[in-house]
Amino acid sequence: MNVQTPLNLLYPRVTEAFENAHMLPSEAYIDPDWYAREKAGIFGNAWVVVGRAEQIPNAGDYFTCHVTGQCVLLARGEDGQVRAFSPSCRHRGALIAEGEGNKRAFVCPYHRWTYGLDGSLIGAPGMDGHPNFDKADFPLAGISCAVWQGFIFINLSDTPSSLEDDLADLGPIVEPYRLGDMRLARTKTYTIKANWKSYIDNSIEAYHVASVHARSLQPVAPMSAWQCEPHEHFYLQWAEFAGTLGVLKGEEGFPPMPGFSLDQPARHILVTLLPNTVLTMTVDAIWWITLLPLDVNTSTLVVNHAFPVGTRERPDYEAIAERYFRRFDVVSQEDIEITEIQQRGITHGRRIPGLYQEQERLVHAFAGYVLRTLDRSGA
Amino acid sequence: MNVQTPLNLLYPRVTEAFENAHMLPSEAYIDPDWYAREKAGIFGNAWVVVGRAEQIPNAGDYFTCHVTGQCVLLARGEDGQVRAFSPSCRHRGALIAEGEGNKRAFVCPYHRWTYGLDGSLIGAPGMDGHPNFDKADFPLAGISCAVWQGFIFINLSDTPSSLEDDLADLGPIVEPYRLGDMRLARTKTYTIKANWKSYIDNSIEAYHVASVHARSLQPVAPMSAWQCEPHEHFYLQWAEFAGTLGVLKGEEGFPPMPGFSLDQPARHILVTLLPNTVLTMTVDAIWWITLLPLDVNTSTLVVNHAFPVGTRERPDYEAIAERYFRRFDVVSQEDIEITEIQQRGITHGRRIPGLYQEQERLVHAFAGYVLRTLDRSGA
Amino acid sequence: MNVQTPLNLLYPRVTEAFENAHMLPSEAYIDPDWYAREKAGIFGNAWVVVGRAEQIPNAGDYFTCHVTGQCVLLARGEDGQVRAFSPSCRHRGALIAEGEGNKRAFVCPYHRWTYGLDGSLIGAPGMDGHPNFDKADFPLAGISCAVWQGFIFINLSDTPSSLEDDLADLGPIVEPYRLGDMRLARTKTYTIKANWKSYIDNSIEAYHVASVHARSLQPVAPMSAWQCEPHEHFYLQWAEFAGTLGVLKGEEGFPPMPGFSLDQPARHILVTLLPNTVLTMTVDAIWWITLLPLDVNTSTLVVNHAFPVGTRERPDYEAIAERYFRRFDVVSQEDIEITEIQQRGITHGRRIPGLYQEQERLVHAFAGYVLRTLDRSGA
Ligand code: FES
Ligand code: FES
Ligand code: FES
Repeated sequence: MNVQTPLNLLYPRVTEAFENAHMLPSEAYIDPDWYAREKAGIFGNAWVVVGRAEQIPNAGDYFTCHVTGQCVLLARGEDGQVRAFSPSCRHRGALIAEGEGNKRAFVCPYHRWTYGLDGSLIGAPGMDGHPNFDKADFPLAGISCAVWQGFIFINLSDTPSSLEDDLADLGPIVEPYRLGDMRLARTKTYTIKANWKSYIDNSIEAYHVASVHARSLQPVAPMSAWQCEPHEHFYLQWAEFAGTLGVLKGEEGFPPMPGFSLDQPARHILVTLLPNTVLTMTVDAIWWITLLPLDVNTSTLVVNHAFPVGTRERPDYEAIAERYFRRFDVVSQEDIEITEIQQRGITHGRRIPGLYQEQERLVHAFAGYVLRTLDRSGA
Repeated sequence: MNVQTPLNLLYPRVTEAFENAHMLPSEAYIDPDWYAREKAGIFGNAWVVVGRAEQIPNAGDYFTCHVTGQCVLLARGEDGQVRAFSPSCRHRGALIAEGEGNKRAFVCPYHRWTYGLDGSLIGAPGMDGHPNFDKADFPLAGISCAVWQGFIFINLSDTPSSLEDDLADLGPIVEPYRLGDMRLARTKTYTIKANWKSYIDNSIEAYHVASVHARSLQPVAPMSAWQCEPHEHFYLQWAEFAGTLGVLKGEEGFPPMPGFSLDQPARHILVTLLPNTVLTMTVDAIWWITLLPLDVNTSTLVVNHAFPVGTRERPDYEAIAERYFRRFDVVSQEDIEITEIQQRGITHGRRIPGLYQEQERLVHAFAGYVLRTLDRSGA
Repeated sequence: MNVQTPLNLLYPRVTEAFENAHMLPSEAYIDPDWYAREKAGIFGNAWVVVGRAEQIPNAGDYFTCHVTGQCVLLARGEDGQVRAFSPSCRHRGALIAEGEGNKRAFVCPYHRWTYGLDGSLIGAPGMDGHPNFDKADFPLAGISCAVWQGFIFINLSDTPSSLEDDLADLGPIVEPYRLGDMRLARTKTYTIKANWKSYIDNSIEAYHVASVHARSLQPVAPMSAWQCEPHEHFYLQWAEFAGTLGVLKGEEGFPPMPGFSLDQPARHILVTLLPNTVLTMTVDAIWWITLLPLDVNTSTLVVNHAFPVGTRERPDYEAIAERYFRRFDVVSQEDIEITEIQQRGITHGRRIPGLYQEQERLVHAFAGYVLRTLDRSGA
């Protein structure tokens, strides 16, 4: 692939008006070179959700995660600030932290160089006599990090955009769901044999619900009622109906949050936080999926559920929360299967990208976002 | 590898006369770039045996197969015709069929676009209002397909040669075996760690029989009696002796077909259908192996046995058929082991291709076929 | 990577004086292209230890090994000479030997071409009538081979240096350990997820002992006492103290060799035989590790223990030898874990190579050796 040719010129019909637009070419889903461009041009500049602030409430709490092969350490400092680092020792590069826990400092297991919670090097055994060595020159490499409504985002770019600005218009929209008062309840990870965009495509169109989720999601809500609206940094999908999106038909969930009722129509919202997270907000819970590519045709799907603060203290918490998890597992299994069937079809088939159906307006927007972001990044 | 340099110039001794000819260079068996050329230049233009017409006798019967990464759907139409398609949905590319079965139409599992048995798009939910959409523009991509003597062949080229012409001279030769009256009895698949050509090389020379098959095949037939003859699109090997090639020495098979006897010398024939199938015809059965490369050093070996129509109805069918299968399994296991030892030797050794032994005339012909086909294809 | 750019110019600080020197860049440990250069430029020219002469004491004794993908056959001839060959048959390339054993000749399993213990082709069935064939033209490809102090080395280069010259200065240094009188006791192989150089780096610095081996090696010897000295073809590390390096603290080993005592301070020596072997000599035993890369981030670690001739005949041999093996297993497990943690840190982290600690002088020397050897080789 010639990295100089703008994709917009190679595939001009992708960004045409909806009725004339063609889908992304098959290469976008199966070509390792295309993925290499996305890794640099999309994931190298994007704000990516990696967790919740309440996961690390105290000074010294930390966890690690991976974003397109980069390991990132998130830690809360003595000053209460959440920071992100590359956990590679500045001596010979060993990992100074894996998993999660609480530490007063990060001690490298190889030769005991020691880093503070703010990433500064505070100990380096036997380096005192070195004529050119100054600890101040060897902090952990920092990674941009921001917290929005309790969500921790990282950005691998050295010159990231402002997350606050990017999501400024979203604040009022999600206000009724009091996201800052949510508490993480479960994180579950799946490895899927599909391109990360296939699962995003799937999440931003309701066209597939009647067939793929005929017995799971379709009975819960009248899918034809969904509306959508693309913004620059996020997409909205919403529908108004009475009930919760969180449990399967006929099951009882937690009571709705203040301001919501199960009997009155309420607005249920899916927010796609570009490029790779889809957050669902319903009357009694939220959950969000994040797609993290491993290679062009393998991805990690991470799903997180959160309930309003205090929910976990309920005596019936375990039994009822399980219904939300099971509902998600049933529906996501259907989506995983169909996206893997799609991946096989694109990989082993002769596909000529065609036209969109009316309910695929966000798939069209997302295809344009991918092309424009790659072209703009120069990747 | 410079794709502009004709291989014939790089390896001039491969195509010299038999007594001076050198074997194919090691690259032909271990270099991923060489395999990429074969995938395009040989398998992209070849007629490849993928099954038997009697596998799908009725309208709506279908099966799928893979040829060098391409999935192919074979289906019999209402008009009795066997057709081949790429089973990738013209909407977002999902596989519309896998495995085998009988269907009235192929319904995509993602959004229910529906294709007739002739590949035409006959349903596309919710696309009616689209100003630019016409179902006639979105049939399944067709793949060339032909039936010869009951064998189904496909050809991935857009401009395939005529299979009938290619095999015109072969018809009279195989006539005594009434191939059209054969019925598929068993299909078995092995994954071998060897280049596909290694197993073809093995199948077209009798030089190895005395050592590799000393206790299995060698006692069945006087291997020195074999003769061979290369044609443009197929190779012949034959020997005349009394008995069957189908079971191990001392075992009893099915009665010979009309026109054959176990007591009288008969002609036993191996036909290599270039590039990747070797069909054996003996007095009471036929079987054919097909080599389908997965990558340069991994291949799928598919073996099919067929017996004359009516054989399966015999009360002793299971017991006797099992002898044919076991005989093949014993012999092929020996060939798989030796080709894998050869693959390891070529991969990890310093090999300088040398001269052929008298019984390797078809290996020489096949090496020339590979070089000439690649050069001609421009791959 | 541009193969024309000298690495010394790309990374000028690697070869600066110790106090100013930077470590090798991360690419050296994770970039497949860098490894491809090492495979050709370092392993393609190096003398590599592959075994001991006493493993194949008699004519016809042989074993095979792999060095960066090349299979090598070592065999002792009728004349008592140890020779090395590429065990790929000169006919169609099958492996003529795997594993170890004793043979009068090597018979290819495919068509029975037969090679003498000196590699000459002595039989080729059915080739007699070939007008252009002369057995003398088809010996096994020879590989350079030398024996030094009982160690068998091979060199994949066509124009190898003189091993005797390379190690001339080492002879007097190792003389007290009577290496020629050692007898191989155990060979054990580990696959590690780390670059081969990481484990060499680990073996040539004592900086990590206090942390990584706090409870295993640290109590055995005062690590601060170690001194080191780089030579062109080998490195020396040594310390003088009473006791053995061979067993864990508190365990009893074999009696010391003549000339050594457990009560008197003795010199314990580690010799790094560049590029990939580290030999440890203590008062009662020797052992050596060899790193054989499989790819840029996967290596085989082979460890061999040897004891003085006669030790194996002791009635308490099994029980005591087991202590040496266990001691090594404990310590090497700690080193494997830390080098794998280092590999993950370099692979998934943002590492900026920094300055060395005083005890890492040989790591600095080794980094310079790698760069200079690659540049000199033109690989
Ligand atoms: S690698 Fe971290 S202290 Fe040495
Ligand atoms: S992918 Fe087949 S109908 Fe949508
Ligand atoms: S490959 Fe060794 S004898 Fe034929």
